[in-house]
Amino acid sequence: MIKETIELNVRYAETDQMGFVYYGNYAQYLEMARVAALKKIGISYKSLEETGFLLPVSHYSINYLKAAKYDDCLSISALIRTMPTNKVVFEYEVYRGEDLLATAETTLVFMNEEGKACRPPTFFIAQLNPFFS
Amino acid sequence: MIKETIELNVRYAETDQMGFVYYGNYAQYLEMARVAALKKIGISYKSLEETGFLLPVSHYSINYLKAAKYDDCLSISALIRTMPTNKVVFEYEVYRGEDLLATAETTLVFMNEEGKACRPPTFFIAQLNPFFS
Amino acid sequence: MIKETIELNVRYAETDQMGFVYYGNYAQYLEMARVAALKKIGISYKSLEETGFLLPVSHYSINYLKAAKYDDCLSISALIRTMPTNKVVFEYEVYRGEDLLATAETTLVFMNEEGKACRPPTFFIAQLNPFFS
Amino acid sequence: MIKETIELNVRYAETDQMGFVYYGNYAQYLEMARVAALKKIGISYKSLEETGFLLPVSHYSINYLKAAKYDDCLSISALIRTMPTNKVVFEYEVYRGEDLLATAETTLVFMNEEGKACRPPTFFIAQLNPFFS
Repeated sequence: MIKETIELNVRYAETDQMGFVYYGNYAQYLEMARVAALKKIGISYKSLEETGFLLPVSHYSINYLKAAKYDDCLSISALIRTMPTNKVVFEYEVYRGEDLLATAETTLVFMNEEGKACRPPTFFIAQLNPFFS
Repeated sequence: MIKETIELNVRYAETDQMGFVYYGNYAQYLEMARVAALKKIGISYKSLEETGFLLPVSHYSINYLKAAKYDDCLSISALIRTMPTNKVVFEYEVYRGEDLLATAETTLVFMNEEGKACRPPTFFIAQLNPFFS
Repeated sequence: MIKETIELNVRYAETDQMGFVYYGNYAQYLEMARVAALKKIGISYKSLEETGFLLPVSHYSINYLKAAKYDDCLSISALIRTMPTNKVVFEYEVYRGEDLLATAETTLVFMNEEGKACRPPTFFIAQLNPFFS
Repeated sequence: MIKETIELNVRYAETDQMGFVYYGNYAQYLEMARVAALKKIGISYKSLEETGFLLPVSHYSINYLKAAKYDDCLSISALIRTMPTNKVVFEYEVYRGEDLLATAETTLVFMNEEGKACRPPTFFIAQLNPFFS
């Protein structure tokens, strides 16, 4: 299992006229958390792309439990529970203090530069393996 | 059943360095489609808010099948299949020509200005009723 | 002189908790207007990039006179007043009906794929020339 | 004089297909820096709004010198050089290490909840005064 938590403050631009964080903006928060989770085990998402592997999202679902507001300090955790195959599944929790604001899940798939689904690079598997045995 | 389809062109700002529409930006497209679906049956989302009703998203899920690119002309349809109660469920399809790019679903809940879940306003029910009997 | 005007409706995501369009979102509106202005005279910004020319913004200034709100129908005009050299200067006006909401100006510079400033492609000059003689 | 510097990492969502930070996204970075500059001298922008004062941007200009890329660590400084009257002028610099990427300036104006221009609240003036005598 791999888990990492990041903290951030809600930007003004991320609110809408309801006074809450716009529902579409959580996608950015989750992405930052999963990049941090990969970085924690030595995988740079930036380098991954530079070596010719893309990792687009194929499925995304999110439950909004309580609203986040401007300047709120949020902590977002990303978790990989099972060893990735051609897919990587992340689960997320968004907290403000003790309050659980949202839970989410994304599935990402490996793709080469021609846009075809492919296997993960060997270094990716090598880095993750120790966490799932 | 209520259904409406909108068309739009992908903005440059909506792409990311992968060269595709960023996965978080579809949330805006879907919102525009559901607002159009409500407008079609005489409900202005703007007026709804002005009369003190908010309609935040409580659940959102999306499957990304093919990538959308800059300047693509997309058609996004929003559909209400069953008569809303305190919740309104929308289903969506995003097409580029014949290509289905994404399918999605959102659940929205009625909330009053104090942030409490509430029943939909009577005019909302009155406008929708004819489409589900 | 080249001029084109586009119309759009303000998206919910573009508002902030002040109830207005977030000041940073006008950049997208202006970009859409300038792309339309180029398209009007037969230049596709998308094709321009595909032939290896980038056209990033080097300077941008904007005056906000009145606030735009959710669902407002805005008309945004983009104007090239003088024949471009290595730079292209666009002037903009954002209207809601009779109300002038913002005026803006951007300078764009030609860049090749290595990120170096360069001259515009010959077809670009050829397409624009008739409008400035 | 009041000055504060923040650091942030470029988000994936903030890039566009050119591979750079989209020119419209700097507006968010600058906003975060000026909110931090006010916080440094004891003024919470959030509280300012809660007491009925809005501080929208009336003018914004920016020069883009070098492009910022995904995952870049940027430092953004905001500076108030002269004592605000009804207007507050911020100057900004965006750096990546030693590289100056952008310089910018914004003018903000005080507005009451009815949307009328107004004088700054007395506590605002009181907090700023010591820095300009």
